[in-house]
Amino acid sequence: MTTTEPPPPAGSASETTLRLGGVELARGIRAQVSSAAAELSLAGVTPRLAVVVATDDESSAWYVRSIAKTAAKSGVSCDIVDVGADATAQDVRTALEELSNDTSVHGIILQTPLPAGADFEDLAASIDPAKDVDGANPLSRGRLGAGLPAFAPATAAAVLALLDHYEVPLAGRTCVVVGRSNVVGKPAAQLLLRRDATVTICHRYTEDLARYTRTADVLVVAVGRPGLITAQHITEGAIVIDVGTTPTAEGGLAGDVDETGVSGLARGLTPVPGGVGPVTTALLLHHTIRSAQRHA
Amino acid sequence: MTTTEPPPPAGSASETTLRLGGVELARGIRAQVSSAAAELSLAGVTPRLAVVVATDDESSAWYVRSIAKTAAKSGVSCDIVDVGADATAQDVRTALEELSNDTSVHGIILQTPLPAGADFEDLAASIDPAKDVDGANPLSRGRLGAGLPAFAPATAAAVLALLDHYEVPLAGRTCVVVGRSNVVGKPAAQLLLRRDATVTICHRYTEDLARYTRTADVLVVAVGRPGLITAQHITEGAIVIDVGTTPTAEGGLAGDVDETGVSGLARGLTPVPGGVGPVTTALLLHHTIRSAQRHA
Repeated sequence: MTTTEPPPPAGSASETTLRLGGVELARGIRAQVSSAAAELSLAGVTPRLAVVVATDDESSAWYVRSIAKTAAKSGVSCDIVDVGADATAQDVRTALEELSNDTSVHGIILQTPLPAGADFEDLAASIDPAKDVDGANPLSRGRLGAGLPAFAPATAAAVLALLDHYEVPLAGRTCVVVGRSNVVGKPAAQLLLRRDATVTICHRYTEDLARYTRTADVLVVAVGRPGLITAQHITEGAIVIDVGTTPTAEGGLAGDVDETGVSGLARGLTPVPGGVGPVTTALLLHHTIRSAQRHA
Repeated sequence: MTTTEPPPPAGSASETTLRLGGVELARGIRAQVSSAAAELSLAGVTPRLAVVVATDDESSAWYVRSIAKTAAKSGVSCDIVDVGADATAQDVRTALEELSNDTSVHGIILQTPLPAGADFEDLAASIDPAKDVDGANPLSRGRLGAGLPAFAPATAAAVLALLDHYEVPLAGRTCVVVGRSNVVGKPAAQLLLRRDATVTICHRYTEDLARYTRTADVLVVAVGRPGLITAQHITEGAIVIDVGTTPTAEGGLAGDVDETGVSGLARGLTPVPGGVGPVTTALLLHHTIRSAQRHA
């Protein structure tokens, strides 16, 4: 993928921590999406993504609008299917089933949070795996883990896309993932393992987190606690991928990594915002295109 | 579960390495199976396990016979469905589909090795998840990973059953799994993670294996290379679960751990044979009973 961002130097340590931005990478992916969407359009197919929403949550609404806006710019139609914050689990399931059966829809995302009593994992099983562009269906995850073709959760896929974009070697390297969510931590660990990294998964019950994170050549942090990772948690020369996105009082986003603290110590760090986020959105569209191409 | 085997002492190190045998635990599980099978029988249901075989492999045949023999003794009917070593992938799939549709069958195992051109993961997707007593269907694995109810692969479940039997604490402990197979390493790592252990997965591309294994409070080895784990790979006081079963020239089985080497250093070690193996077979039957109970 072409980019204007420089790759990190070959040496292991650096005095300046490289900013491993995702904006250029995302732009490149979206350019591919646009051109594929134009081709599909000639064949009479409009690639179409549907986002099922059952919440009044503000940051969720912000995220969904940003997907819809980006989709529109890339030639992907995006429907926001709002079943309301008072929807039952069955309402959500029905929406997912209808979209799964609708041949004009190529990608389906189930947005969180969900109403009380609605279980994400359980509901995501109603998403047709062929349209499961955010890898939410347990079948997609199982296929991914088994090495079979499946869409990976877009955020986990974005972590790998960034590492590849900056040519970070993974085979035989020590990768530590902090956070074991089904949507990021676990699938990111699976993808890193598939790339022959030695992978450690840490979480809230991990005692002496720094003991593990300091072993990392590549550290992936997906917890949602700003400032969790400080200088004492990393080894000089590490590559740090910050997946955290906690809304700040000022209306911005904060990652999990204390940027100032690790600066000059890490070889590279993804910024928040402008790191994993834009790549995630671009990959959701990319997955939708792949699904549409199979149906064209 | 009652047992005549002593639990390990509370201290971290010991001069004698405890033998963490699985025979008594397996006996206890089989006793539960027998009594549940007798109850089902009164309700007119014979719990029935089917093993699909498509190989002439000797050690596979030995394993299947041992399952069938153990099943018979526990009141579980066991059919060996031999489709022949020259079967096509489609032949295997057809057999799995027929058994999935057969309401008198409660458990289905697909035995390996498979003929050339037949992919285990792909075929296992044809096993009804409700009857997938060895957790082979990618959907079962995905559900397991997502924390949804599913049968775990029996060997991985046996690792956890042994750790629980010997009251080895897992939450917050460092567990290292060597081997990343879909049938043992990966699901064992998932189950340990679910139990709040900090988990590292090592494999053939791991550089300096001992660097990782020496951090382990609990070391699970599932590679199939006798003598892989020696004294230099473990820390005093570690609990070592040996999943390796390599046939020896003398007609026996060898684990992955150099028993003599780690003796006196590890706090506990599962023997091979007589450790994970018998528990695995007992759990396959236990899973079959659970499936039959749902159908009764």
